[in-house]
Amino acid sequence: MKSVIVVAALCAIASAHVAQAQTPAECKPSPLNIPEAKYPCVYPDKRVTFRVLAPDAQKVRVRVGSGFDMQKGPDGVWDVTTTPLVEGFHYYTLQIDGAVVSDPSAKTFFGSGWWNSGIEIPSSDSDFYAAKDVPHGRVSQQHYYSTVTQQWRRAFVYTPPDYDSKARKSYPVLYLLHGWGEDETGWFRQGHVDLILDNLIAAGKARPMIVVMDNLNAVKPGESAAIFGARGQVPPPSAAPPAPAGPPAAGRGRGAAPAGGRGPGGPLGRPTYTEMMFKDLVPMIERTYRVAPGKANRAMAGLSMGGAQTFATTLTNLDKFAYIGGFSGNCGGFGGGNSAPDMKTICGGAFADPAAFNKQIKVLFLGIGSVEGPGTKAFSEALTQAGVHNVYYESPGTAHEWLTWRRALNEFAPRLFK
Amino acid sequence: MKSVIVVAALCAIASAHVAQAQTPAECKPSPLNIPEAKYPCVYPDKRVTFRVLAPDAQKVRVRVGSGFDMQKGPDGVWDVTTTPLVEGFHYYTLQIDGAVVSDPSAKTFFGSGWWNSGIEIPSSDSDFYAAKDVPHGRVSQQHYYSTVTQQWRRAFVYTPPDYDSKARKSYPVLYLLHGWGEDETGWFRQGHVDLILDNLIAAGKARPMIVVMDNLNAVKPGESAAIFGARGQVPPPSAAPPAPAGPPAAGRGRGAAPAGGRGPGGPLGRPTYTEMMFKDLVPMIERTYRVAPGKANRAMAGLSMGGAQTFATTLTNLDKFAYIGGFSGNCGGFGGGNSAPDMKTICGGAFADPAAFNKQIKVLFLGIGSVEGPGTKAFSEALTQAGVHNVYYESPGTAHEWLTWRRALNEFAPRLFK
Repeated sequence: MKSVIVVAALCAIASAHVAQAQTPAECKPSPLNIPEAKYPCVYPDKRVTFRVLAPDAQKVRVRVGSGFDMQKGPDGVWDVTTTPLVEGFHYYTLQIDGAVVSDPSAKTFFGSGWWNSGIEIPSSDSDFYAAKDVPHGRVSQQHYYSTVTQQWRRAFVYTPPDYDSKARKSYPVLYLLHGWGEDETGWFRQGHVDLILDNLIAAGKARPMIVVMDNLNAVKPGESAAIFGARGQVPPPSAAPPAPAGPPAAGRGRGAAPAGGRGPGGPLGRPTYTEMMFKDLVPMIERTYRVAPGKANRAMAGLSMGGAQTFATTLTNLDKFAYIGGFSGNCGGFGGGNSAPDMKTICGGAFADPAAFNKQIKVLFLGIGSVEGPGTKAFSEALTQAGVHNVYYESPGTAHEWLTWRRALNEFAPRLFK
Repeated sequence: MKSVIVVAALCAIASAHVAQAQTPAECKPSPLNIPEAKYPCVYPDKRVTFRVLAPDAQKVRVRVGSGFDMQKGPDGVWDVTTTPLVEGFHYYTLQIDGAVVSDPSAKTFFGSGWWNSGIEIPSSDSDFYAAKDVPHGRVSQQHYYSTVTQQWRRAFVYTPPDYDSKARKSYPVLYLLHGWGEDETGWFRQGHVDLILDNLIAAGKARPMIVVMDNLNAVKPGESAAIFGARGQVPPPSAAPPAPAGPPAAGRGRGAAPAGGRGPGGPLGRPTYTEMMFKDLVPMIERTYRVAPGKANRAMAGLSMGGAQTFATTLTNLDKFAYIGGFSGNCGGFGGGNSAPDMKTICGGAFADPAAFNKQIKVLFLGIGSVEGPGTKAFSEALTQAGVHNVYYESPGTAHEWLTWRRALNEFAPRLFK
């Protein structure tokens, strides 16, 4: 982060010079562009140039964290170069004469309830989620019928590299949830769960495991069909992308839920998801895949609102899980000026008896981006002070975004099933 | 198709009346909309209402086959109701003050080289690709490294419902290619290959098989990197979506290649793909999956440009395949006013000895949409006249689009591996 700030300062001082000194050849197309698209492109100092053809438009902006006005060229192409962006994955949108749309030059990703554009600013540690010459597992699409929601649902399931060749081996399972406004495609498309696990397993750092990526939206017939982050109403509430409720602390971002779990599902998440998970999802997984039995072989984690749901589901079912992970989301509700809540009653009283909790749960993991504020760290420290074993991980320089969550998974997975 | 034309005629006569008589309640959201999006919606007579918020725009159009100008309402929402559309899946785009973008209310699909919107007009026979309470196979993402292109590639692989439970059983394989401007996601996202196979297998109509969906773009280092259908250059050649070269006959559409195989790859397709397939793809599949050996257990098919590639690959390797399918794409080059070519020399001379060809190939399948013109039928008849056994299938009322190809797969798969 420090180097970004330094470079940004240099650019601010000498922007005209830098702009001329850097040739477009230094600007590399984002890996998430459509085939052959040169723009958006990323400079070594993490500034990004966006371009879009809109010959008859009056005003065009790109919104990638902040908003940047684009300038129109004589060929009808609008153009802007941003200030340096944070490394990692960002959702972004174009605003063309008031219409908020995705960029035709980039791949789209489901976030904030719709298929918006994605850009990848190469990170210094991107090696851990790079495709390498190691054995690769598979991510599979799995249809299943839910008796609780009375609808067909879809999950994606990662099976490790040796799953097909070792036909008698059974594997532990990690249930892994996305965030607000996202869906079951998030962890494998934005998160690179498969590459992260492939690399950890090849290095002997993580045990081969199955990872189940489900959709946390689950409503019964008659229940409010409101889906977290849906953007489908016309007209949308505003021309700008919906502003997700940020976590209580300083972190703000996209794909975010109230990190304290105080979203529409209340302090203990959505009971319908938990019910659906145990009645439909887990039985389907254990029927379909070679799953090692018992709580010692079952973990659950999630990001943001998925972290809140994870805590809601696991803390009320401590007999069914041995590992719990919250990435920028948990049940704490710390930070943002809150005084430390009572550890006897917080999170439905799950931590009232620390010794009993420690006996049930082998790893309680709390991950957060360093830019998201001190709430999660304060929660971790309060837990420790109360005698609840937990692991705190802070992703350097990142906000409420996917690089935080890729790194959190990379730290969490090696601690599982040992 | 006849009923559509009749309804269209009635609408033209009584459009004002119909527009008032039909309440929006009759207009059902497209199944490909984002969660909770009410628009685009489809009327029972297959007219579609599109809406988009673009408060400051001067001109907005939707292009779904034809172009339709939208009208601006006082709330900044633009609106139009089309004439009745053909049933099935269509790519579509919005044009907002000259910018061609996808519709924020709909799911995006990779076609014409970018992530454009999709709409589904329910078809009378949609039952064959519906999710039902039958055993479901899986579609898996499979990374593999190509020694020929020297790049990581990705395929999707369908394994049938009993694949995981019958650990000693091996399965025949169908290699299945997408069309121009599409990629390896096409057959499972637009095509519903998994649901079609699940339903056929459950009904006892098709043998359980593995289906490999690869990306037909393959270039060696130093070869022209031009990817069929890439749209990534800025500015694009025109503000309108690229006009793909249509098949020689009457059919025109999106995701289309020259059906006669006369595309950039020449009359026998792209040799690099064939080389890559045999050096990298097939060995990876046979190493990773339980594949039944021999040509009797190997089929290849493709749509449009993928059909042309299929013929290019299989006709030069008759010892390696027993089944060949071309859906709106083959090696014929018939139609469009062409006189019937010489059957001795057409398609690289593959049909010069009909008896020898019939001995090698168990099923040669030619599928086409009825609106695409007579070229494929003429090719089939010329083959039959020359003594080459073949199956001709015509999808009623459909053009060069995915409903034609879903139906063609549904007709082709039951004929395989018997």
